[in-house]
Amino acid sequence: MPAHQFFFRRRVEFAETDLAGIVHFSYFYRYMESAEHAFYRSLGFSVHDFRPTPDAPLIGWPRVHASADFRLPLFFEEEIEIELLVEEIRSKTIRYYFRFWKNPDDPEKRVVAATGNFVVVCVAFGEGSGIASEPPEPGKRRMKAVAIPDEVREKIEVAPPGLIPDSVDNQS
Amino acid sequence: MPAHQFFFRRRVEFAETDLAGIVHFSYFYRYMESAEHAFYRSLGFSVHDFRPTPDAPLIGWPRVHASADFRLPLFFEEEIEIELLVEEIRSKTIRYYFRFWKNPDDPEKRVVAATGNFVVVCVAFGEGSGIASEPPEPGKRRMKAVAIPDEVREKIEVAPPGLIPDSVDNQS
Amino acid sequence: MPAHQFFFRRRVEFAETDLAGIVHFSYFYRYMESAEHAFYRSLGFSVHDFRPTPDAPLIGWPRVHASADFRLPLFFEEEIEIELLVEEIRSKTIRYYFRFWKNPDDPEKRVVAATGNFVVVCVAFGEGSGIASEPPEPGKRRMKAVAIPDEVREKIEVAPPGLIPDSVDNQS
Amino acid sequence: MPAHQFFFRRRVEFAETDLAGIVHFSYFYRYMESAEHAFYRSLGFSVHDFRPTPDAPLIGWPRVHASADFRLPLFFEEEIEIELLVEEIRSKTIRYYFRFWKNPDDPEKRVVAATGNFVVVCVAFGEGSGIASEPPEPGKRRMKAVAIPDEVREKIEVAPPGLIPDSVDNQS
Repeated sequence: MPAHQFFFRRRVEFAETDLAGIVHFSYFYRYMESAEHAFYRSLGFSVHDFRPTPDAPLIGWPRVHASADFRLPLFFEEEIEIELLVEEIRSKTIRYYFRFWKNPDDPEKRVVAATGNFVVVCVAFGEGSGIASEPPEPGKRRMKAVAIPDEVREKIEVAPPGLIPDSVDNQS
Repeated sequence: MPAHQFFFRRRVEFAETDLAGIVHFSYFYRYMESAEHAFYRSLGFSVHDFRPTPDAPLIGWPRVHASADFRLPLFFEEEIEIELLVEEIRSKTIRYYFRFWKNPDDPEKRVVAATGNFVVVCVAFGEGSGIASEPPEPGKRRMKAVAIPDEVREKIEVAPPGLIPDSVDNQS
Repeated sequence: MPAHQFFFRRRVEFAETDLAGIVHFSYFYRYMESAEHAFYRSLGFSVHDFRPTPDAPLIGWPRVHASADFRLPLFFEEEIEIELLVEEIRSKTIRYYFRFWKNPDDPEKRVVAATGNFVVVCVAFGEGSGIASEPPEPGKRRMKAVAIPDEVREKIEVAPPGLIPDSVDNQS
Repeated sequence: MPAHQFFFRRRVEFAETDLAGIVHFSYFYRYMESAEHAFYRSLGFSVHDFRPTPDAPLIGWPRVHASADFRLPLFFEEEIEIELLVEEIRSKTIRYYFRFWKNPDDPEKRVVAATGNFVVVCVAFGEGSGIASEPPEPGKRRMKAVAIPDEVREKIEVAPPGLIPDSVDNQS
């Protein structure tokens, strides 16, 4: 059955806090990405070194947009839950919506600390992808946007109405 | 004269790249923040340990929203320029717009790699701010949103029309 | 029974890799610290906000020395195991020794990717610690080295001979 | 004339601090690496994408050892100076010694906050280096230790006696 939701747990590490005593906001983006990657693993493939078929080019998912809205701080050693929802699937892009849950195991204290979203684009790397085969430089692989492979598309679906609020990016 | 624009230079460091060979997207948020803080320094105050007057409480600027749109990758050792523009000033919040310029010194190759924005809220910390004086825990200072002090407000202004595109967050 | 050994699992995250395609060496220090903090939690206290008794000052454990020797690279999505061993306990300091295990669940492929060590010093923060009570500035708490509290000391012991090689720091 | 010393300036960024209000120790290793890379640039080559001659394989400098001793904390917005010294040159490795200077422009307050060292090994990447040409996987380039190219060796020399204390790693 295709998936539209995923939950990922993470404990805040010391190095992720800043002098305000809270998690630095840049780590919220890393937490969202870690949730996204764990979501891919749960579907049976990796964000890295993934070929939909043995002869196909490598597929990657760089982000073209990422945003977050911060409501409550996160503290050192807190265990948080990141909820991922598939908001939209287009030909070459997927839009994810995220919620950060504090106190995820306590029904009375469970509360949203932040929300966010990613737009990721499906790209093919290097030769075999129809990309001009210049001599590859380390760390400078060629990529181009491609249609999301059927092997991925059949494993995910858009979250049903009601799970994601409208117009996320217009809120602030 | 009040300021509405600021330019900040940064050279990409090795630890900021990822296995795709490009700057990890989470560092774009750190670069924007570094530009913001350099902007404050250019106005004569610090984002940290700042009191508008000797008796006033400490002022801080946590972000409540941050987003970015990524067009072109940034590479190791590249020198980039982050342009900050004051997009909106409200009673308690400021909205900044950012552009990331590649090849900043080459008029023919100068190009925007990414754009972004922050909404930061002015907060007062601890006692003297009218905040309930619970015993302070390290790293858990109390804060509350307050009006932007006149000492700050008189130093900044909104960027004139034309410098910032409309509806930034609606683009993606 | 006092503890002298602890194992901590961690999966490598994308943002921790660099353009060489491997975990950036700076994250090895963070992994060691996360293992150390998980060790403290396993003993029933936190590295943060810990008072041995209700009236005692807050105790912290800044590191005065940290080193690592790197043998094998770590890759994205690998699950690794960090082994912590208590190498030495002095009046005010503890020395830890660490091993990074690749393929931790496979007896035939289990191999050490890196080793390292920390020397951490026990410090007391702020008032009540006999520290001059200047007005506290945010992020600039006063601290001084103190004897390791009995409440901590009775929970840990030095690892028995043979578990840690001699003269770690002299190897390179 | 060969170089044995290099100075690198850096201003502490907000995201580099932790909830103790000081620079997280993991960033000291990044600062040292940034100083090392700036040193290479000052010699006319990059740590990345460097070939001593057009036909030679790419050369890289992974570290096999890195350590640091911490004396004084570094604070947000401080400008610091990292001093690099060439401690030892062997066939395939270079050992660097580092000092972190606080208040670098004030002769009376200039003080060492930390010291450290790196051992880096010269490696050749991929095809043309005599390395078995398996199909290259992204982020998993093959490398092997090689003799330091003459083009590099003739540009550096060991620091004269007296500039570096003996037995750095034995101090703690």
